[in-house]
Amino acid sequence: MTGSTSDVGFEAVAQRAREAAHKLALATRATKDAALHAMADALEAGTDHVLRANGEDVATARDQGTAEGLVDRLRLDEDRVGAMAQGLRDVAGLPDPVGQVVRGSTLANGLELRQVRVPFGVVGIIYEARPNVTADAVGICLKSGNAVLLRGSSSARRSNEAVVAVLRDAAAVAGLPADVVQLVPGEGHESAKALMRARGLVDVLIPRGGAGLIRSVVEESTVPVIETGTGNCHVYVDAAADLDRALAIVLNAKTHRPSVCNAAESLLVHADVADAFVPRVVAALQDAGVTVHGDEAFAACEGVVPVTEEDHRREYLSLDISASVVPDLDAAVEHIRTYSSGHTEAIVTDSQQAARRFTAAVDSAAVMVNASTRFTDGAELGFGAEIGISTQKLHARGPMGLPEMTSTKFVVTGDGHVR
Amino acid sequence: MTGSTSDVGFEAVAQRAREAAHKLALATRATKDAALHAMADALEAGTDHVLRANGEDVATARDQGTAEGLVDRLRLDEDRVGAMAQGLRDVAGLPDPVGQVVRGSTLANGLELRQVRVPFGVVGIIYEARPNVTADAVGICLKSGNAVLLRGSSSARRSNEAVVAVLRDAAAVAGLPADVVQLVPGEGHESAKALMRARGLVDVLIPRGGAGLIRSVVEESTVPVIETGTGNCHVYVDAAADLDRALAIVLNAKTHRPSVCNAAESLLVHADVADAFVPRVVAALQDAGVTVHGDEAFAACEGVVPVTEEDHRREYLSLDISASVVPDLDAAVEHIRTYSSGHTEAIVTDSQQAARRFTAAVDSAAVMVNASTRFTDGAELGFGAEIGISTQKLHARGPMGLPEMTSTKFVVTGDGHVR
Repeated sequence: MTGSTSDVGFEAVAQRAREAAHKLALATRATKDAALHAMADALEAGTDHVLRANGEDVATARDQGTAEGLVDRLRLDEDRVGAMAQGLRDVAGLPDPVGQVVRGSTLANGLELRQVRVPFGVVGIIYEARPNVTADAVGICLKSGNAVLLRGSSSARRSNEAVVAVLRDAAAVAGLPADVVQLVPGEGHESAKALMRARGLVDVLIPRGGAGLIRSVVEESTVPVIETGTGNCHVYVDAAADLDRALAIVLNAKTHRPSVCNAAESLLVHADVADAFVPRVVAALQDAGVTVHGDEAFAACEGVVPVTEEDHRREYLSLDISASVVPDLDAAVEHIRTYSSGHTEAIVTDSQQAARRFTAAVDSAAVMVNASTRFTDGAELGFGAEIGISTQKLHARGPMGLPEMTSTKFVVTGDGHVR
Repeated sequence: MTGSTSDVGFEAVAQRAREAAHKLALATRATKDAALHAMADALEAGTDHVLRANGEDVATARDQGTAEGLVDRLRLDEDRVGAMAQGLRDVAGLPDPVGQVVRGSTLANGLELRQVRVPFGVVGIIYEARPNVTADAVGICLKSGNAVLLRGSSSARRSNEAVVAVLRDAAAVAGLPADVVQLVPGEGHESAKALMRARGLVDVLIPRGGAGLIRSVVEESTVPVIETGTGNCHVYVDAAADLDRALAIVLNAKTHRPSVCNAAESLLVHADVADAFVPRVVAALQDAGVTVHGDEAFAACEGVVPVTEEDHRREYLSLDISASVVPDLDAAVEHIRTYSSGHTEAIVTDSQQAARRFTAAVDSAAVMVNASTRFTDGAELGFGAEIGISTQKLHARGPMGLPEMTSTKFVVTGDGHVR
């Protein structure tokens, strides 16, 4: 295996990442794609090695009484390793964002101006249990020309080490520095802290995981952070909604995959259609196994539990939904402003005016008109790979694909121009 | 005057800014431009009021023995107030970035996707002495749809209060909430700290000032920061340089306006042209009053003082330059990687190959080929207004105009689409 990072300090690792990033930034698309294919092949060839390491992590987790749901997220099998390899090949097939000219002109004085996409340099990823994130993040970072420093959870340490060792070897075989991929040395909060305080060595930090992880990174990091993921998504059923469509959209948004960030967590219904819609939607949600946490209007239906202030704020990630009747569209907007995490909100309406007002007034990463919140997703929107869904307003907002993993620089060409 | 912010706490002020931002985000370009013109007219009409307040600040500064250079930065006169008004009118003439569609397509399933520019919301500006920044920042923030919280230096407190009072009144007359412009209440570090810790209330923080100010904001802020300004800019004279051009560019970059961030602070000369160029450039720089801090090759010239490691890192902002001979282009790139602040570097060369290698390998916000570093400037590059020059890689890099003061959101329109 090509080197090991476990016996050296963070700063040495970060310096090696910077050196590797300088080389990677100049690599052609052909070289990067060859490395991605070599990594995919090596992962498949190294499946046994990876599964053995993963088996040890899983055994340890079970010994420690970890919940079976978490153990399943940690567990790899041949199919999952195959999917990791396929993910790397898919990224190879996407256009290279590096070198794209995003703005260009010739100025009045003859200077030629080009604004060109360039890699960030070194990207840090702090993530939780799932070891398949390791390969996904490496693929996206490598294709966008960024060296990556990975800090996974300690429960997946052996799995991540095995995957990273395989990917480093493959990078070297393809002619790139192995140090384009490294694990952050050490364990526990100290290792995360080293990454978070490495301003000047690490260009961008992306936390992927639960709300607690993300909050702590935002609080502690001096490295610029891209915040991803928390989704308290709302569906607002307008007075002018087609109620059959509204029912289908609410059910899809809530129940299609309740554990993900673009699932709906809150339902708002215009008072004018409450009598017609509330009993129908409650019955349909309950049939699908959903617990409805409703206000007074909803609580008239059997089985609805009273909604609390805390429910309005919650990202349940489960078969629960908070539900309220609102007097008008503006009240829906105000409710969303107060409680939303700024991920995705949807309006169901046949009124052009209502759609226009809602999309203008709601300030979230994505606003859906007559479509499920579940469409806020890089694959669904045609971006190919996705490193996460940004819920902040700086840099990237919404699903982040390859172009969002780059910065730009201005290249200005003259003929001896002075001021 | 429309309200006062001096007797209330920070959180109340920030909440008012958020409310105002919601309204401002929905304002048309016509309304915003009318407010900018009203502000310009009101500033001119209120010149006496503003100059009286400024006179008190200047008198206090003189009493406290402030250096005359700083007093001059603080001082306003009729011309400077007129320039502030003209700046507001110029911004009114620029295109409105809000509502621009930056990406759009119809997906395979018929969903219509639009990525649209929207305001950040509330922007915080922390800045030093010059009170004209107050009006400049307000103009750019208002046109880009952002409410602004200003935290100027205490030495300009009365000037800033007078300018802000005039601008708030004019905003209200034009039909916008006066609270689109507010000063952060209180003084000293506590008031800056309140702004820096206001994540969730303030969307973006832009420090404008010296390196110390910017470093402290980056360290302490949990609000996303856009880092601006520090420029340790290099000019590299290649083996294939036209030496007359090189001389003109070095002189312009160093001496045209030494106190600004895009002035050159460091000169690198390829060994092959050192004999021909070093004595010429030293003589020309010294004739222009520049002190050359040179390595051994430069120190052979009379009057050159020995360069130190610290000189290589320094942003002099004065008639000083560090100077070294390098064995080749790669050594120049390596020197720049080690010491540059990532603002602007220039190469002077007639070699297409050298220009291509330099622009690819140097990772700064702007790379000039046969042009002075002084061109890294919003006005020079045709961006109209400029809030600062970003030296970070996240969000915006290089001169920041109106589009860089916005975020985006995705608007996705369907026909009852579910997954």
